[in-house]
Amino acid sequence: MSGFRYDLLQQDSSSQARRGRISTQRGEIDTPTFMPVGTQGTVKGMLPEALKEIGAQIVLANTYHLYLRPGQKLIQQLGGLHQFMHWDRPILTDSGGFQVFSLGELRKITEEGAAFQSHLDGSKHLLTPELSVEIQLALGADIVMAFDECIPHPAERGYIVDSTNRSTRWAQRCRKVLPESSESALFGIVQGGMELDLRRQSSEQLREIGFEGYALGGLSVGEETSLMYDMMEYSLPLLPVGRPRYVMGVGTPENLLEGVVRGCDMFDCVMPTRNARNGVLFTSFGKVSIKRAQYRDDEQPLDPDCQCYVCRNYSRAYLRHLYTSKEILASVLNTHHNLYYYQQLMAEIRQALENGNFTEFRKDFYKKRESLVS
Amino acid sequence: MSGFRYDLLQQDSSSQARRGRISTQRGEIDTPTFMPVGTQGTVKGMLPEALKEIGAQIVLANTYHLYLRPGQKLIQQLGGLHQFMHWDRPILTDSGGFQVFSLGELRKITEEGAAFQSHLDGSKHLLTPELSVEIQLALGADIVMAFDECIPHPAERGYIVDSTNRSTRWAQRCRKVLPESSESALFGIVQGGMELDLRRQSSEQLREIGFEGYALGGLSVGEETSLMYDMMEYSLPLLPVGRPRYVMGVGTPENLLEGVVRGCDMFDCVMPTRNARNGVLFTSFGKVSIKRAQYRDDEQPLDPDCQCYVCRNYSRAYLRHLYTSKEILASVLNTHHNLYYYQQLMAEIRQALENGNFTEFRKDFYKKRESLVS
Repeated sequence: MSGFRYDLLQQDSSSQARRGRISTQRGEIDTPTFMPVGTQGTVKGMLPEALKEIGAQIVLANTYHLYLRPGQKLIQQLGGLHQFMHWDRPILTDSGGFQVFSLGELRKITEEGAAFQSHLDGSKHLLTPELSVEIQLALGADIVMAFDECIPHPAERGYIVDSTNRSTRWAQRCRKVLPESSESALFGIVQGGMELDLRRQSSEQLREIGFEGYALGGLSVGEETSLMYDMMEYSLPLLPVGRPRYVMGVGTPENLLEGVVRGCDMFDCVMPTRNARNGVLFTSFGKVSIKRAQYRDDEQPLDPDCQCYVCRNYSRAYLRHLYTSKEILASVLNTHHNLYYYQQLMAEIRQALENGNFTEFRKDFYKKRESLVS
Repeated sequence: MSGFRYDLLQQDSSSQARRGRISTQRGEIDTPTFMPVGTQGTVKGMLPEALKEIGAQIVLANTYHLYLRPGQKLIQQLGGLHQFMHWDRPILTDSGGFQVFSLGELRKITEEGAAFQSHLDGSKHLLTPELSVEIQLALGADIVMAFDECIPHPAERGYIVDSTNRSTRWAQRCRKVLPESSESALFGIVQGGMELDLRRQSSEQLREIGFEGYALGGLSVGEETSLMYDMMEYSLPLLPVGRPRYVMGVGTPENLLEGVVRGCDMFDCVMPTRNARNGVLFTSFGKVSIKRAQYRDDEQPLDPDCQCYVCRNYSRAYLRHLYTSKEILASVLNTHHNLYYYQQLMAEIRQALENGNFTEFRKDFYKKRESLVS
């Protein structure tokens, strides 16, 4: 595996938090990092230049969606996903598993893989570990995720055991078609539901196979937040210190901070982008629903403490007007702000880790919200 | 009237075409010019910075829409429309008449003005010439349009006579509340349907009142294109040489070129922006419907001759993918390209006028389309 490396730059003295750096052929990623989600080969409403402006160093793209439309072969033929979407920094692709397993009735799992029907046209497909890797490589992903099953919560222990073991066998098959010598990095995904011993077993088996990075899957699937934190706290230290750790599909700003405290390096979530399109905006003093009547004539920037393009140039009243008028720019500006907020939060976390005042930073983060909410 | 001026820089020797410049307190506008339409205080999908990047020197905003939502008083209180929408170049506002008269059953015309019901909530309003000017001034328009009735086509001569005379009286009332000494310029609008003598009468009466610029209204309302051209050809020379001339709501690239030939300086139309959102794109070789299957794997830029941000960075295949996937970026990129195309066309027209080869330019324009369509 060439070009991919993780350097642990600093280990926080009073928590599991780590400041690190991932190097890839397409550039570096400072960790802890947040990856904006570009499901269909575009981060909804964001030009690639805007993503760079707010400091995004990597984006996530969805294998399931791009496989169905426009198809990985087409993208490969056009020079790969980077060229297709005009993004020259690293791309991580998920394995397609999460989307397939979300289809419910429309899919069936066997040892071979997951048979499913397209949500677009009902056409039948069989997604296997081998095909998942093939698709991700055709897209040109810098980081490929192993094909796994995201176990729902709650689930019977028997099912969790079987599914976790199958995911491990699938991870092995992914490793086989994407050996360490490949240009793209391969990440294994720890499953095990909410069962500590199965999480441990999954971690150990994946470590034995050996991956360039490790993710925690099956979190943020409806469990209590405290349980999610417990799972992170227990599982993350089971992973190798010298590899990046990624908690998939998480989460709120608070979740990110708590993930970092517990040793996580990478996050992705549709929350900042999806919330933006629904007019829910993240600020230093908590969430704001911009459609509320109180913002009708509010000339203040959304977050007076924020330095983003939106907060420097527009009022809450204008953002409310765009949202209530269903204007395209509502999604564009709201997404820009929310992603900036997430990138800025991660930048501040990294800075605090470098300065050795991460514990203080975390306290202040919560204090600011409490004082302003009350 | 302070700060507003029109300079005729060059008169084409073999047509009515003119190269000119409008000066306002908020900057200059090189004519002939095309004004992107920002109906609700935003040109749909375009950041103000992008509008500047493509060379837009003025935008149009709609009085009717902004009056109903969020309201001109709110915008005034927040510093005016320029600050509200983060656009510091000139803004022209229409009078609201066109939208009100489009409401059909929901409006009633009297000498006083037009009574109508809001398309948003059914609330009742009376838009008068005085209120229209008041709204436009509250918005902070650099160019205010007189309140008039846009006569449908076809219409009875008797109705056209009455309506045109009423529009003249309304124009007089607008002038009264917005005298020449005002900071904002006021444009009169020539009506008269498709009746030459009434167009002449309207022009003469408006000239007598005296305005900083003159527009042709009531065109592009369903009449044959050749009839529209005839009306321009007859009516534009009736207007004072030393004032800008504006044909409202026109049109296609061909219409713009033919308007310039006949002496028009200003245009506005929703066509480039609305078509963009429907996947219909303007190119040097004619219109392209980007959803067509032939573009599925087409790696070429939309228009290989175009230097816009979209054509420099994306393929037809990607634009098709965004459009078929209903992505926000489809509207953003398509709008960017179409508005660039319009701005570029006007820039080339101005250049040809400066170079004295406008007749050749016009021939080439049509030749290129014919050769590539066949």
